[in-house]
Amino acid sequence: MSDPTVRMEMDEVEKLVFDACFSAGASLDTCHSLVRAILSAEGSGNKAVGLDHLPDYLMALREGRLNGYAQPELSFPAPALLQVDARGGIAQLGFDRAFDELTTRAATFGIALLSLHGAFSAGELGYYPLRLAKAGFAAFAAANGAGLMTAGSARGPVFGANPIAFAAPRGSGPPLLIDQASSRTSPVSVRRAAERGEALPPGWAVDADGKPTTDAAKALKGALLAFGGNRGANIALMVEVMAAGLGKANWSADVESQVQGSARPAVGMIVIAITPALLDQDFAPRLDRHLRRLASNGLHIPGEAKGNAARAASRSGINIAPETIARIVAAAGS
Amino acid sequence: MSDPTVRMEMDEVEKLVFDACFSAGASLDTCHSLVRAILSAEGSGNKAVGLDHLPDYLMALREGRLNGYAQPELSFPAPALLQVDARGGIAQLGFDRAFDELTTRAATFGIALLSLHGAFSAGELGYYPLRLAKAGFAAFAAANGAGLMTAGSARGPVFGANPIAFAAPRGSGPPLLIDQASSRTSPVSVRRAAERGEALPPGWAVDADGKPTTDAAKALKGALLAFGGNRGANIALMVEVMAAGLGKANWSADVESQVQGSARPAVGMIVIAITPALLDQDFAPRLDRHLRRLASNGLHIPGEAKGNAARAASRSGINIAPETIARIVAAAGS
Repeated sequence: MSDPTVRMEMDEVEKLVFDACFSAGASLDTCHSLVRAILSAEGSGNKAVGLDHLPDYLMALREGRLNGYAQPELSFPAPALLQVDARGGIAQLGFDRAFDELTTRAATFGIALLSLHGAFSAGELGYYPLRLAKAGFAAFAAANGAGLMTAGSARGPVFGANPIAFAAPRGSGPPLLIDQASSRTSPVSVRRAAERGEALPPGWAVDADGKPTTDAAKALKGALLAFGGNRGANIALMVEVMAAGLGKANWSADVESQVQGSARPAVGMIVIAITPALLDQDFAPRLDRHLRRLASNGLHIPGEAKGNAARAASRSGINIAPETIARIVAAAGS
Repeated sequence: MSDPTVRMEMDEVEKLVFDACFSAGASLDTCHSLVRAILSAEGSGNKAVGLDHLPDYLMALREGRLNGYAQPELSFPAPALLQVDARGGIAQLGFDRAFDELTTRAATFGIALLSLHGAFSAGELGYYPLRLAKAGFAAFAAANGAGLMTAGSARGPVFGANPIAFAAPRGSGPPLLIDQASSRTSPVSVRRAAERGEALPPGWAVDADGKPTTDAAKALKGALLAFGGNRGANIALMVEVMAAGLGKANWSADVESQVQGSARPAVGMIVIAITPALLDQDFAPRLDRHLRRLASNGLHIPGEAKGNAARAASRSGINIAPETIARIVAAAGS
């Protein structure tokens, strides 16, 4: 039997998260940026990067893998390029500091790119394009992370989960929002399967020797595989070159762990913002009409369920397991 | 027993293709642009969009689906945005007309986007990023096409093959080059399987009622499926919004056939060019070092084989089946 959940209004959740971040050793700015991102993920139902992910940030703040007082450094290598050195802090604060310049320059030049490095973690990647889409921009993002995925006959992890995200404004309702890892499954799912003694489906993981395995315990010592075979592996490679190359960050194979040790992960991310109304004044309503047509034809439109969940959450709060709250409070060390 | 092939130097192949395009009714400019693209695909071993694809262009020129005398119209909705109306002509000519402005603006602003609509077909999508990578840019491209793919429980084709392509310069050797369709297989493969009475693997296609099928004949009346399940379908959707939305072109569901009828397909494409050296002076050599490391670890690096094939072709020519030459000459109507 699972624990009963408690109902909390979003401003109560905000206070819980803010207090936890502050007592784990984050500046007010870092607290604000992290709270906003965590609440956005949790409110839209993306719990794995919401409150369940918060203890990772809190432990990292306390153990030095995440610099809670980092002041991100913003520079402009070209009129439509923004470069942020997160200096060991959270990516979200770097994004917040760059947001106005990013949107102003995307509106002025038609397109602008944010390249961010030295970050602890990108967190929920869709968060960045979603915020841009709500401001009227079409946006694409890519991020890397500590090695956990391999491909082909390579031994050992050479990619992170390497997600991509894309969002675009619609004439009405929540933006279109695609946000997905390049790995077929997550490390958490493999860990759970190992704990329960369950087998993994074929094609999800390899063992420590790089051989395909369905044994979750062996997969834990090996690496994840990409979704969709070679084409998914190519997406992971493209993300790697974008996030660690154009993002000027560590290659995933060289990134230190987010959850242990004392070194800083220093991952990378790029976010590209485009002003669609400059290309087609009718872009947002036209996209909305087409997506409604596709949905009425049976197609799943990503972003709709998350948008509706976020609206419901801001109206009437969310359900949280008391255990989640306990884990947050414990990790905050207050 | 298959036909023996003939060996031709690349300048002989060039003459063959040029004469065929000219006699099918293309302007000198259109001939030059198409020749360059077809030879690039064929030389790198990507035959499906090389000489084997040429008769589609030739028939379309003769039957009016492709305007061989189109003058692409280039405009600048913003300093880093280029918009091309291909006016029923080939996408490659539009790209050639925009190339200098695209690279100049990408170098000046750090990033620039080309939005192209009203084109007959994008052809080999990797061609565009590859040319940019050879000039020192990292580049991403997306294109749509006539409906042939579906997803979820949708009935009928709602996406084209919707390829993406990405290329980036390396310190030495051919650029990294990813170029792949979002569909699990191509219409040609389904047609061949149907002709041979072979079954398709599960997950490749649906029948006319939108039900999964392994019967190639039924698949021909239905639609293809995306690679990699829901995530691949999301990639197809992202490409659709980029190419037909930001590319201001017809949605794939509304695109007329490339191979029959008299209407013009009018598909769309976007190409994004980024100047990586502005973000990291060491980008190209650093990428080269990392890709060598990944390759020595057993990872397949896309673009290497194509680059090597292209070098070999320009040195010592390529093998062509006499039947291919006969089909080109017949389609040219000369």
